[in-house]
Amino acid sequence: MRIAILAHEKFPDRAKTALGVMRYGDYDVAAVLDRDAAGTRVSDHVPDVGDAPVVASMDDVGEVDALLVGIAPIGGAFEESWRSDVRAALERGCDVIAGLHYFLSEDEEFARLAARNDCDLRDVRKPPEDLGVADGVARDVDAEVVLTVGTDCSVGKMTATMELAEAARDRGRDAAVIPTGQTGIMTEGWGNPIDRVVSDFTAGAVEEMLVEKGDDHDYLFVEGQGSIVHPAYSAVTCGILHGSMPDRMVLCHVAGREAVHGYESFALPDLPAYVDLYESLAGAVHDGEVVAGALNTVNVDDDAAAREAVEAYGDALGVPAADLVRFDENPVLEAVL
Amino acid sequence: MRIAILAHEKFPDRAKTALGVMRYGDYDVAAVLDRDAAGTRVSDHVPDVGDAPVVASMDDVGEVDALLVGIAPIGGAFEESWRSDVRAALERGCDVIAGLHYFLSEDEEFARLAARNDCDLRDVRKPPEDLGVADGVARDVDAEVVLTVGTDCSVGKMTATMELAEAARDRGRDAAVIPTGQTGIMTEGWGNPIDRVVSDFTAGAVEEMLVEKGDDHDYLFVEGQGSIVHPAYSAVTCGILHGSMPDRMVLCHVAGREAVHGYESFALPDLPAYVDLYESLAGAVHDGEVVAGALNTVNVDDDAAAREAVEAYGDALGVPAADLVRFDENPVLEAVL
Repeated sequence: MRIAILAHEKFPDRAKTALGVMRYGDYDVAAVLDRDAAGTRVSDHVPDVGDAPVVASMDDVGEVDALLVGIAPIGGAFEESWRSDVRAALERGCDVIAGLHYFLSEDEEFARLAARNDCDLRDVRKPPEDLGVADGVARDVDAEVVLTVGTDCSVGKMTATMELAEAARDRGRDAAVIPTGQTGIMTEGWGNPIDRVVSDFTAGAVEEMLVEKGDDHDYLFVEGQGSIVHPAYSAVTCGILHGSMPDRMVLCHVAGREAVHGYESFALPDLPAYVDLYESLAGAVHDGEVVAGALNTVNVDDDAAAREAVEAYGDALGVPAADLVRFDENPVLEAVL
Repeated sequence: MRIAILAHEKFPDRAKTALGVMRYGDYDVAAVLDRDAAGTRVSDHVPDVGDAPVVASMDDVGEVDALLVGIAPIGGAFEESWRSDVRAALERGCDVIAGLHYFLSEDEEFARLAARNDCDLRDVRKPPEDLGVADGVARDVDAEVVLTVGTDCSVGKMTATMELAEAARDRGRDAAVIPTGQTGIMTEGWGNPIDRVVSDFTAGAVEEMLVEKGDDHDYLFVEGQGSIVHPAYSAVTCGILHGSMPDRMVLCHVAGREAVHGYESFALPDLPAYVDLYESLAGAVHDGEVVAGALNTVNVDDDAAAREAVEAYGDALGVPAADLVRFDENPVLEAVL
C-alpha cells in the first residue's frame, strides 16, 4: 500500500507515529506532509528509514492509496489545520488512516466525503465492541511474555518492542508483537488500542490478544504504554501490566529526561524505584523481572557520550542495557531470550 | 424524591446498591420490590435503615417519583424478569434510575415509553461525553483528599467512604464525597462511573470531580474501586489513585478474605505489601500515606472475635483500624482528619 504521511510542523522529532510506521511498517511511503519542512527530504532528517520528499500539502503528493495521520497531539484531538489535507485525500478517493481520539469516521464532512468517493476512514484507535473483563489467564499462555515498560511516555517502548521482536526473529526465534497503541496497530495491521477501551476492560483487552497469540509463538513482545507513575496515563500502564502478566520486562527511558513529558512539575522517580515499582506491582499477580534496559539516546549528540549514558543506565538498573536503534550491540536481547 | 427500589430475589444480602442507597442516600423510600420477600418489611431484615414495605411489584407501590434498580448481576446485564416493573413505572410517568452496564436508555421499548410519558431513563453508569486526560492538578486542590483503597473488590470501600464523610460532618467538618461507582453516584446524585470511562481518561475523570469540589470543602472523601493487584480491575484503581492524588488513604479489607474474589487462584499479598504498594505508587506523583484501616467483619459472628480481628488488622498495618459499621469506636476518623 502506497501512502502519504501527515506530520505537519512535527517531523521528525515529534512525529512518533510517522517514524514508527516508516521504520517498522510495510507501507511504501510516497511523501511526508509537513508544511514547516516542505522542500526537504526524509533523509535530511532521519538516516535509517526509506527516503521520500517532505511536502507542504496533499496537492504536492502523487498517486497514493491512503493518507496516514502520523502525529498525535496530547489529548488525541484533530487539528483543524489538517482538514484541507484529509479533505483532499478523500476527494481523490484515498483512504485515511488515523489513530486519534477524535474519530474521523464520526466527522460529518469526512464521513460524507468517504461515502461519496467510496473510500474508508480507518480509526485504529476505535476499540472492538465485544471486549470484557480479564479472566486472569495471561500467565497461562505457553509463550514467554516480554513487556516493555517505561519511565515516561514517548521514551521508546514501541521502538524497543519492534526492535527486540525483529532481533529475536533474526536469531531464529518465533516472536510476535502484541500491539497496544495506534502506531503498533498501524504497523502490525491488528491489535487493540488499549488507551481507548473501557477502563474496566483494560486488562481484558490485553489478555484477549495474548490468549489469541500465546500458543502459536515462543515469544510475545508486548508493546507497553505510558508509565506506572504518569499523572494521567498510569491506568493504561497498570492494565497492560496485569493484563499481560509478563515473565520479563524491559525498562525504557530517554537519556536526559528528568520530568514527566508535558507535566514538567512532576519529577521522574530515580531509576531503581521504577524497577521496584514495576516488579512489585507485577509480582502481586505473576512474578516478572526487569531483566534489561533500553535507553533512547536521541538527545545525545556524541556517540561516545551516548555509550557512556547507556553504560550508566545499565549500572543504575543493575541489568544489561542498550540503545536498540543507535548501536548494534544488543545485550538486551540476550537478557530477554 | 420519593422512590421504589427494585431488588427482586436479592434483598437484602445481595442487594448492595439498594442497601447503600437506603443507608446513605437522601431518598424517601416508599417500597422495596422483592417478589421473594413480599409481605415483609425492610425492618424485618435490616435494622439500621429507614423502614418500608417489601412488595412483589410496581402494582403494589403508591405514588413515587422514580423506580431505582438496586441490584446489579455479575456483568451488569438487565434481567428480563424486571421488565414489567420498569414498564409499569414508565407508564405511570416515573423516572427509572439504573447503574447497569446495559443502558436502559438504549432499550427501544423503555426509550419509547419514557418519551411518551415524559419521564427520564437515568443510566448512572453512562459516563459524560466531555471527559479528557488528567492535567495533573488534583494535588493543588485546597481540600484534604482522603481515598479509600482496598485489598480486593467488595471489601467495603464505598461504605467506608460514606461512613467517614458522615462522621466528619458530625464533627462539624465540611466534607464531601467524590463518587466513582454506581451506588455512590445514586446516593450523592452526581459523579463519574470510573470503570466505564475510556481508559486514557480514568485519572482525568476523577481529577475533574476533585477540581469541581476541591475548593468548596475542607475534606474530600474519594470512593475507591477495585484493588491495585486485581488481575482485571487494577487499571481503574490506579487511575483513581493518580487522578485523586490523595493526602491520606484508608486501606479497606474484609476479614477472612485470602484470595481475589472470583479469581481464587490469585492469593492476596500480605497486608504490609499493600501499604508499600499503595504508598510507593501514590508517592511517585504526590506523597500520600495509608493512615488507617477499615475492616469489614461481616463474616465474623462473634463481637469479641470481630474486635480481635480489627485489632490484629491494625497491628498488621501499623495504623489505627476499625469496623466502621459494626462498632461505634472510630479511631480511623481521628487518623484521617
